[in-house]
Amino acid sequence: MNQQGILVVVSGFSGAGKGTLMKELLRRYDNYALSVSATTRQPREGEIGGKDYFFVTREQFQQMIEEKRLVEYAQYVNHYYGTPRAYVEQRMKEGKDVILEIEVQGALKVKKRFPDALLIFVTPPDAQELRRRLVGRGTETIEVINARLRRAAEEASGMEAYDYLLINDEIDTCVEQMHQLIQLQHNKTGYHLEFLSRMREELCHLDDR
Amino acid sequence: MNQQGILVVVSGFSGAGKGTLMKELLRRYDNYALSVSATTRQPREGEIGGKDYFFVTREQFQQMIEEKRLVEYAQYVNHYYGTPRAYVEQRMKEGKDVILEIEVQGALKVKKRFPDALLIFVTPPDAQELRRRLVGRGTETIEVINARLRRAAEEASGMEAYDYLLINDEIDTCVEQMHQLIQLQHNKTGYHLEFLSRMREELCHLDDR
Repeated sequence: MNQQGILVVVSGFSGAGKGTLMKELLRRYDNYALSVSATTRQPREGEIGGKDYFFVTREQFQQMIEEKRLVEYAQYVNHYYGTPRAYVEQRMKEGKDVILEIEVQGALKVKKRFPDALLIFVTPPDAQELRRRLVGRGTETIEVINARLRRAAEEASGMEAYDYLLINDEIDTCVEQMHQLIQLQHNKTGYHLEFLSRMREELCHLDDR
Repeated sequence: MNQQGILVVVSGFSGAGKGTLMKELLRRYDNYALSVSATTRQPREGEIGGKDYFFVTREQFQQMIEEKRLVEYAQYVNHYYGTPRAYVEQRMKEGKDVILEIEVQGALKVKKRFPDALLIFVTPPDAQELRRRLVGRGTETIEVINARLRRAAEEASGMEAYDYLLINDEIDTCVEQMHQLIQLQHNKTGYHLEFLSRMREELCHLDDR
């Protein structure tokens, strides 16, 4: 009906399988674009500027903040991460549904600036399962795992602000649910005010014959 | 995830194919229940009390209003029509998604009392098509058709208050869209506050080990 893409924020616990979910969604459907974050940290091996991140200096990042060119930003371990507004708006104009994979705090800022944004929180079926997934990797120390669990508890405190909860029990089902959820969002009345007023005008006009 | 059904209001222009849509939805899926209205008008041939309508006297209806036993009600051509609250709540408790097929004014009242209700407006692709469908039946006088178009223009003035717009271009697609839309609504965060607080508690508990 409308051609403009919509803005989708996806958050979720580390261990909820969000990464696989996003990868699978983008592989199956071509109407999505992942937002590219700006960061002040150094590129890691294999990372490509403009694809994985926009790599910028501290000064450039500060300027982006001042010129309000970021939808949201945050600082982690001495580095800045943010979502450039121009990139997001450009892809939306091209008709892409733009997905922001960000943290709870950033998500709330996005919702303030883009009230029409769709906020999705991905969670495993229960906390025990989340713990199993975090521990199950077998690669981290108990300290790292405990830090993650604390982090998860923190993240859980923002879940109520999200529009929808997706339980990632089975990846295939969850990908399809997310796709349907985003696509149906295009039917929100708020996106069709022009259609509605045209409809009304045409009806009045017909009645005038 | 949750077992309780949700409340769905479906409205739409006469001529939007809403009747066929509802019939098809209920034929294909068994998780829906159509709300049964109370009315003061006489039963027509073939109509069954408790299935098509709850047929009541004017006095009974007045009493239902006074005792706040109606979710919404309205008067048309000297007869009262209303939605009994008990029936709706009972079916929801049984896990059925309850569909109210009512007018715009009633829909707005439902939304006030049940803010979680899902309001869907069904419309043909455009006003010309709506007119074609209204005229196309070939059974009504031009006066009746014009009255309908006026009515449609009135109805159109309330469309913005609905959550979603469904365009009934092709019945099969529209039925499936409606089904998906209602089912995904079960994932709304607001329906899972208990799950969320349990998750949070379990996470804190795990962290305390």
